[in-house]
Amino acid sequence: MKKIMNEATQIVDDMLEGLAFMHSDLVERLDGFDVIVRKAEKTGKVGLISGGGSGHEPSHAGFVGKGMLSAAICGAVFTSPTPDQILEAIKAADEGAGVFMVIKNYSGDIMNFEMAQELAEMEGIEVASVVVDDDIAVENSLYTQGRRGVAGTILVHKILGQAADEGKSLSDIKALADKLVPNIKTIGLALSGATVPEVGKPGFVLEDDEFEYGVGIHGEPGYKKEKMQASKVLADELVTKLADSFQMAEGEKYALLINGLGSTPLMEQYVFANDVAKLLAEKGVDVSYKKIGNFMTSIDMAGLSVTLLKLEEESWRDALDAAVVTAAW
Amino acid sequence: MKKIMNEATQIVDDMLEGLAFMHSDLVERLDGFDVIVRKAEKTGKVGLISGGGSGHEPSHAGFVGKGMLSAAICGAVFTSPTPDQILEAIKAADEGAGVFMVIKNYSGDIMNFEMAQELAEMEGIEVASVVVDDDIAVENSLYTQGRRGVAGTILVHKILGQAADEGKSLSDIKALADKLVPNIKTIGLALSGATVPEVGKPGFVLEDDEFEYGVGIHGEPGYKKEKMQASKVLADELVTKLADSFQMAEGEKYALLINGLGSTPLMEQYVFANDVAKLLAEKGVDVSYKKIGNFMTSIDMAGLSVTLLKLEEESWRDALDAAVVTAAW
Repeated sequence: MKKIMNEATQIVDDMLEGLAFMHSDLVERLDGFDVIVRKAEKTGKVGLISGGGSGHEPSHAGFVGKGMLSAAICGAVFTSPTPDQILEAIKAADEGAGVFMVIKNYSGDIMNFEMAQELAEMEGIEVASVVVDDDIAVENSLYTQGRRGVAGTILVHKILGQAADEGKSLSDIKALADKLVPNIKTIGLALSGATVPEVGKPGFVLEDDEFEYGVGIHGEPGYKKEKMQASKVLADELVTKLADSFQMAEGEKYALLINGLGSTPLMEQYVFANDVAKLLAEKGVDVSYKKIGNFMTSIDMAGLSVTLLKLEEESWRDALDAAVVTAAW
Repeated sequence: MKKIMNEATQIVDDMLEGLAFMHSDLVERLDGFDVIVRKAEKTGKVGLISGGGSGHEPSHAGFVGKGMLSAAICGAVFTSPTPDQILEAIKAADEGAGVFMVIKNYSGDIMNFEMAQELAEMEGIEVASVVVDDDIAVENSLYTQGRRGVAGTILVHKILGQAADEGKSLSDIKALADKLVPNIKTIGLALSGATVPEVGKPGFVLEDDEFEYGVGIHGEPGYKKEKMQASKVLADELVTKLADSFQMAEGEKYALLINGLGSTPLMEQYVFANDVAKLLAEKGVDVSYKKIGNFMTSIDMAGLSVTLLKLEEESWRDALDAAVVTAAW
């Protein structure tokens, strides 16, 4: 393992110090906690928080800022944040109108966010939440009942963030989240495993000519290993799975997110995007919002994912388009 | 080599199609050319263009948009764009007030941009340019007389882009560029070589426990290979070289850019940023602008670079801060 780091046991701490320094105009680290909070005047709006294990940078701390998250909790690498950390984030995010939590569907995350919610409610803070389970690759998984929560989560941050910024109530945001999440689906593939710094070797190994469909963002097993194929073959497999899952019909409107998993160059992401674009054009759907880059990574994993959001509401597209002030959107 | 691509010979074409699709709200591909141009009304301002070999994404096409570049020319991978392509970019960028070219210091780039300038002048378009040579690692190099042009180039795009957007004249922009460029210095390190798709293997190989200081963005040799060290040791070497080169003094103001070379996770970049921050604090300088991420990459190279811009003018910082509409800033 070659990584630019100091002590592996200190990597999250070092990273958060670096992050707080580099984005000191936007965010700060909550003293004594692994929580990044927005630097902004409190205006009585609903607070929006998210978080999870570290290793998915820029998720989630890169999305803290005006128009998106109020705070992000950063657990140990690939490890759910603890309830006490989440509680501090809730307290920091609360402006009197309650706090909404965006949770990715991992058993540990759900348990700890729920425990933090109970603690916050005992302190008189109203809390609601949604669980994002956008990964259609497999049902159930290593750390998950049901489907995993992956890159589609950042679209939830953006659309709910806009609603919170517009002053919507906690119950309105909950209703929006419940309508939004089932319309987001993601599927990915990996060319290599990710190396957790404290472990020192990749979580799984693929041969030099091999890749795997449907790998999770913590290296959870996918559904099929194959010899390396052309980008257009990969795109066809993933877009077909998404189209089937949506029962995609001509004329429908979608937002498209192509997400690099950490070490896949933008050059390859654009090549893949071109193949995805052709396939979606053949299906006659309108791709009315597009985003590409490394947003929900898996440390140094090579690979990417495709997310589609079916734009059931015109306002969702407007929310995706709205200006924000964050490090990473 | 495992890459998400179709034919290696078609990779730039496929990439540009994907890029034009994903950012169709901002840019378009010039029909029949490897040139990405801004979609915007012509308002009689100076056009700003840049370009070079592909493989440095998001540079330069990701910086085409309001407030930055009018057009970017995308050569074959790690290969200077040809004069006919550059000429088309000049013609597309011209709004009647002339065109300014930001050229990285590589012999082939300079030759071809200058040839295009001559052709454009024969068509009555006024053209001026600056050569960026920010890499202090080595004097002269594989494809370069003098110092190489690397990540600091994007700061030039931003500051000159703001000047162009404000309606400054071609001669004012030339004067600004000539004052700005000597104040930008960069130095980097690599943990792995980059693989050019048509070549199919890395341009150079580092052992599993080895890295190299001062490698160029095309894999040009650096100045020292060592066994892997802690981030703070790497930061100390690079910051010391920069400080010496600037003859850094307490109280001076700098902009800081930490740039990932393609496959280095943001987690490692932030860890490194924290070490850089401590060293700059010890030197008593004011880091009044900061930026971090993958901006000037070397395909899939692992590693990073640090750029400092000495803020001789307060207006340079304002220009860095000004809002733009681009895919990648």
